Amino acid sequence: MKILIIGGDGYLGWPTALYFSKQGHDVAIIDNFARRGYDLEFGFSSLTPILDLHQRVDLWKKETGKSISIHVGDVTDYPFLTQAIKSCKPDTVVHFGEQRSAPYSMIGHRHAVYTQVNNVVGTLNLLFAIKEIVPDCHLVKLGTMGEYGTPNIDIEEGFIKINHNGREDVLPFPKQPGSFYHLSKVHDSNNIFFCCKVWGIRATDLNQGVVYGVETEETIMNPGLCTRLDYDEVFGTVLNRFCVQSIIDHPLTVYGEGGQTRGFINLLDSIRCVELAVLNPAGKGEFRVFNQFTEQFNVLQLAQLVKCCGERQGMSIKINHLENPRVELETHFYNAVHTKLIDLGLEPHNLSDTIIDSIFKVMEKYKDRVDSSKIQPHVNWRKPTNVL
Amino acid sequence: MKILIIGGDGYLGWPTALYFSKQGHDVAIIDNFARRGYDLEFGFSSLTPILDLHQRVDLWKKETGKSISIHVGDVTDYPFLTQAIKSCKPDTVVHFGEQRSAPYSMIGHRHAVYTQVNNVVGTLNLLFAIKEIVPDCHLVKLGTMGEYGTPNIDIEEGFIKINHNGREDVLPFPKQPGSFYHLSKVHDSNNIFFCCKVWGIRATDLNQGVVYGVETEETIMNPGLCTRLDYDEVFGTVLNRFCVQSIIDHPLTVYGEGGQTRGFINLLDSIRCVELAVLNPAGKGEFRVFNQFTEQFNVLQLAQLVKCCGERQGMSIKINHLENPRVELETHFYNAVHTKLIDLGLEPHNLSDTIIDSIFKVMEKYKDRVDSSKIQPHVNWRKPTNVL
Repeated sequence: MKILIIGGDGYLGWPTALYFSKQGHDVAIIDNFARRGYDLEFGFSSLTPILDLHQRVDLWKKETGKSISIHVGDVTDYPFLTQAIKSCKPDTVVHFGEQRSAPYSMIGHRHAVYTQVNNVVGTLNLLFAIKEIVPDCHLVKLGTMGEYGTPNIDIEEGFIKINHNGREDVLPFPKQPGSFYHLSKVHDSNNIFFCCKVWGIRATDLNQGVVYGVETEETIMNPGLCTRLDYDEVFGTVLNRFCVQSIIDHPLTVYGEGGQTRGFINLLDSIRCVELAVLNPAGKGEFRVFNQFTEQFNVLQLAQLVKCCGERQGMSIKINHLENPRVELETHFYNAVHTKLIDLGLEPHNLSDTIIDSIFKVMEKYKDRVDSSKIQPHVNWRKPTNVL
Repeated sequence: MKILIIGGDGYLGWPTALYFSKQGHDVAIIDNFARRGYDLEFGFSSLTPILDLHQRVDLWKKETGKSISIHVGDVTDYPFLTQAIKSCKPDTVVHFGEQRSAPYSMIGHRHAVYTQVNNVVGTLNLLFAIKEIVPDCHLVKLGTMGEYGTPNIDIEEGFIKINHNGREDVLPFPKQPGSFYHLSKVHDSNNIFFCCKVWGIRATDLNQGVVYGVETEETIMNPGLCTRLDYDEVFGTVLNRFCVQSIIDHPLTVYGEGGQTRGFINLLDSIRCVELAVLNPAGKGEFRVFNQFTEQFNVLQLAQLVKCCGERQGMSIKINHLENPRVELETHFYNAVHTKLIDLGLEPHNLSDTIIDSIFKVMEKYKDRVDSSKIQPHVNWRKPTNVL
């Protein structure tokens, strides 16, 4: 299958590209290196040392004999995007190519507007390009569980049957996104659903939980094939952050009470979910929503789990409850359905001490690269500033 | 009260500005003349001859002694917007300043992206400017009933209580917008709701129905004070279009079966609703949604009503069922709640033969200005083209 990965240079995009290439698919990558640009903007850096895209693709070719083609450019640039789609004629587009950090979107006015325009226009462009050039192509779009917020009812997969005043309909699940980033994903979902209806686009919206983990079978073939790993306040996801904090003796930064419950997923499962969506495409005009996570935890539970594992390894770990820089409920009901990917064959790698230990092990190797000044949160939901 | 009207040069913005000025409020207008630009883009023209904004404001001053200040610029230009807000420090901002045509947004890629970026960024800028400069200012934002689509259950005013698997929550009403324009309004609503929650912004989202009518007490004081009236396929609203079609002996253009039911509102009531929202502002952090229409009709009912009135005036009127250029249900359940504005004191001007006759009367005066080549629909939801 011809698979185009947008954002194929990123944390998830890169190992997903390698995985599909290994499975024998014909893989192309679009990337504008925006993610590397955010590092330059704030002096952040991946914990793992990463090669540039041309180098890592060459290395992959050397290791496996398999080619991945590269299109360097921005999906908000429509002429570039249509040229790339015309040249690679994908059967599937996997779209990771968005600004993906909630705190980044909350820095201030400029970052909020950038995040929404970048994400919404990129996806709109992609929808038009698919319609015009490859109308049968399946769009697999990364969304987030954060689109739903924390309603006081079970979260369904995209749609909910509502009985109201004696009548009934199946309607889009009401969303309550909690940042300009999460809002951009809701805007995307609405735009994609509409295009499926009016143009017959095939689309799968993957509402992904928080991803943790760093290695895959492909990335460990050579140190130069590793994917990036972020531990900073802006791009680090919570479990990865807690693990890095542990290995450098930094107290774990729990925001508020830590009762915030979310869905989580292992990097390996995340890639497998994308594969399951790709191999079982949506029908013509179908807009499918899968909730892509395997387990629910609250933030304090995760901190305690990491503390436990770390202490068994001889680390001494403190948990700090910081004033919450976000506006969110700190204790709430949370129960989200996530059966559709299981039904397609997902076999979850549940979070275990072994998994945390293996993450520690990778991190230990690079602990000298940690800049501890990038850990404390500075972005405040209540006070946008435009300076970090 | 100091009231800033964004889009104050438009069909609704202009008579609303005059109305508030007449009531003794201190009125300022922001406009970028985008609406006049769309006319130039396609060779459209208001049926009523309109003066430019400086001329009409001067005329208003001459007629009434009242001043309206003008800020010419684009709300997507943040430095301009913050400057304007700083200089007029409004108590209320009434935001009409968006691209407001569904067909315009469906012309093709460029118009879709323009509509969403223009509308979403303008409103985001406004939210940031209010937070930074006038945090107690009340935002009155024009939305549309079209955000809801046509669900098979009663449409509530913004929020719905949902019982699900034994639990209950009040959640945003699920939306199913039917064009890139309607989608932009949903994106706006989501962004505004979020800013109310995190920053304590006061906002009222007016989900307005289809507006008809042309004259107000203020606009008839002098022919130079009239507001624009659109009858073309792109910017004309359905009842106004049917009336113009009648007076030039053009068959009424009903799309498909004509069973599409929508909410409608008289121009006078539309202005009164905005006034009621302004005089009864939302609380700190409150996001209020009012469904702003007074009656429901389907398109064929309206055509028959206009035909009836016209024939009584001696016109000979044919109803044509055109192939529907839109993707929408042509027969469906529709029942939308609209009590909140009534509770605040709205006394509806219901649609009557007298009202249609009075619209005919204004139109008759300008019938020589109608360009009949602008009536037939060319924008097709299924086939974006970028050429009209």
